[in-house]
Amino acid sequence: MGALAAFSRTGVIKGLALSTAAQAQTRKKGGAYRRIATEEAFAIPEMMEILGGYCNSNWDNPDLDLMRRFTDPEAKTYKELIDLGDERIRNMDENGLDMQVLSLTAPGVQMFDADTANAIATLSNDRLGEAIKRHPTRFAGLAAFGPLDPKGAVKEMERAINKLKLNGFIINSHTHNEYLDDPKFWPILEAAEALDRPIYLHPRSPSELMSKLYADYGMSHALWGFQAEAGLHAMRLMLSGVFDRFPNLKIVLGHMGESIPYNIWRSDYMYEGSGAPAKMKPSEVFKRNFVITTSGVNHAPVLKYCIEVLGADNIMFAIDYPYQSSKPAVDFMNEVGISREDKEKIYHRNAERLFHMSA
Amino acid sequence: MGALAAFSRTGVIKGLALSTAAQAQTRKKGGAYRRIATEEAFAIPEMMEILGGYCNSNWDNPDLDLMRRFTDPEAKTYKELIDLGDERIRNMDENGLDMQVLSLTAPGVQMFDADTANAIATLSNDRLGEAIKRHPTRFAGLAAFGPLDPKGAVKEMERAINKLKLNGFIINSHTHNEYLDDPKFWPILEAAEALDRPIYLHPRSPSELMSKLYADYGMSHALWGFQAEAGLHAMRLMLSGVFDRFPNLKIVLGHMGESIPYNIWRSDYMYEGSGAPAKMKPSEVFKRNFVITTSGVNHAPVLKYCIEVLGADNIMFAIDYPYQSSKPAVDFMNEVGISREDKEKIYHRNAERLFHMSA
Repeated sequence: MGALAAFSRTGVIKGLALSTAAQAQTRKKGGAYRRIATEEAFAIPEMMEILGGYCNSNWDNPDLDLMRRFTDPEAKTYKELIDLGDERIRNMDENGLDMQVLSLTAPGVQMFDADTANAIATLSNDRLGEAIKRHPTRFAGLAAFGPLDPKGAVKEMERAINKLKLNGFIINSHTHNEYLDDPKFWPILEAAEALDRPIYLHPRSPSELMSKLYADYGMSHALWGFQAEAGLHAMRLMLSGVFDRFPNLKIVLGHMGESIPYNIWRSDYMYEGSGAPAKMKPSEVFKRNFVITTSGVNHAPVLKYCIEVLGADNIMFAIDYPYQSSKPAVDFMNEVGISREDKEKIYHRNAERLFHMSA
Repeated sequence: MGALAAFSRTGVIKGLALSTAAQAQTRKKGGAYRRIATEEAFAIPEMMEILGGYCNSNWDNPDLDLMRRFTDPEAKTYKELIDLGDERIRNMDENGLDMQVLSLTAPGVQMFDADTANAIATLSNDRLGEAIKRHPTRFAGLAAFGPLDPKGAVKEMERAINKLKLNGFIINSHTHNEYLDDPKFWPILEAAEALDRPIYLHPRSPSELMSKLYADYGMSHALWGFQAEAGLHAMRLMLSGVFDRFPNLKIVLGHMGESIPYNIWRSDYMYEGSGAPAKMKPSEVFKRNFVITTSGVNHAPVLKYCIEVLGADNIMFAIDYPYQSSKPAVDFMNEVGISREDKEKIYHRNAERLFHMSA
């Protein structure tokens, strides 16, 4: 039974992947890659219960539509999000994944009031820390925090890195329609810089100031609204000058950079004479302060474009499990025609460096 | 004096380019390309006067900021926009441009009430038609129309093609915060399809439903707001299903497609299960019904990406004169490392086909 479980866990029964030990062996011979996926979601039941309550309320908020699909305890995604053990690791083994960098699923604690947000962030960071302790070679994690209470957020950020040994932070774009370029949030940026850990700026549906236009035709979420919201948030940060104040702050953007790399030449051109307070042009800030991930985009031309424009040091592999499947993401990265060196950087080296993970 | 003027017109004095006649000669030998620039702006004084009045009002609208820079009759851009003769042609000669496809500068007539919009659209289409008659080998043109009065718009569209012999249509994204996917505007889409002429969907600042968030740090315009607004507009059209109803309608998008090509894989992936009414997935609609231009983006990696993802048949050359300079745009296209066949398509063949221009 123990042997069978081991077989099952390593995925040999399904014939999809080598065991982790065998993978490590192969890696040493220069075969497979160490694979770290950097935008992988989890949840805790206490958070899901509150979000589920919102879903059943008459609050008209574009985030709720997607939340309804995963806050039902009977839903497959709910179970996948809650699981921080066997099933998740089995999926990783089957797909040759060494590690997941876990983060509390969007919209995180950012729809809550300040006290609830702090309480749920603390609780979920604790759970995350415990999961990593149980599986230190398979999981790393990004800490949640409640932005409404910047002072409390900074305390929790410090605890998450110094005590829980987490690897960075996650934020899901706007908080009650406010953005991180607002000076009231600067203590959070300052703390991330001082702790030398990145903030993963994850999307959520467009804020209420623009959500109406994105609410038709299913556009509130990943179909179009997410990149509009997160891309806008990142541009606000870049142009506001916060990186002049916090030059070592690192921000991670998923989904191949939320359209910013595509527009980088034009953004530079238009930055001149725009009156934007930032002292450096967008491409300089982006290359210095941002790292993007491949989450949700298994598309070779985009990856090659980003390597050409940003360099492979600024790109990390990600899947967006369980919202997207591990296998096509791994197949994509395995097969994409880029150099072995670039693939190693994207698959693990950049994540190891940025998140202070052991190599 | 005549000889000197001829010299000056052809740019030989400045040493920048061959004369048009010499260019045609060279083209025949397989040297230079026929160069058609497809998003080139002009204005008429009557329109500028009304827009200037708005600029001096206390209307809080994000378009006004940019308009202030060109509605002043003393401004260089004002003079360049108004000119449909010698100076414009001199600039074209100096930069080896054979033709400009002209369109009334953004925001066109779309800030006006219905009657004013119709009157200014008619007047500017007449002036455009006259300029083309004076310089039939140098100018083509896209007709303006007033979307607030769809019936009147259709009449003007028919007149512009059948009587004035213009080549297509221009619209500047939203009209009083409304978008073309609204069924009340469908007669306009139907007319464009029936006339077999494309609508150039040009950006303007984000509509009032989202403008506040883009109003900081100079983001209302080309720095970030334009692609957000025009990209959203195009996605609304694609997902709403209007192309199921008008399968032969052609829409042109500037600025390398307003971020849509970059997100096309993810859009397809997320279209499944999104509930969007469109029967075809975004990439299929985009390749069938859209053509993009290079306006404002002299960046080789983006152009190569778009050729790979969309094919060279779906891309046209554009400068965005006088807002951007002709020389760097022409230098960029001359030097970009793509095949001669692709360059011919982008420089002139696609425009000839789409706008029904003689080859």
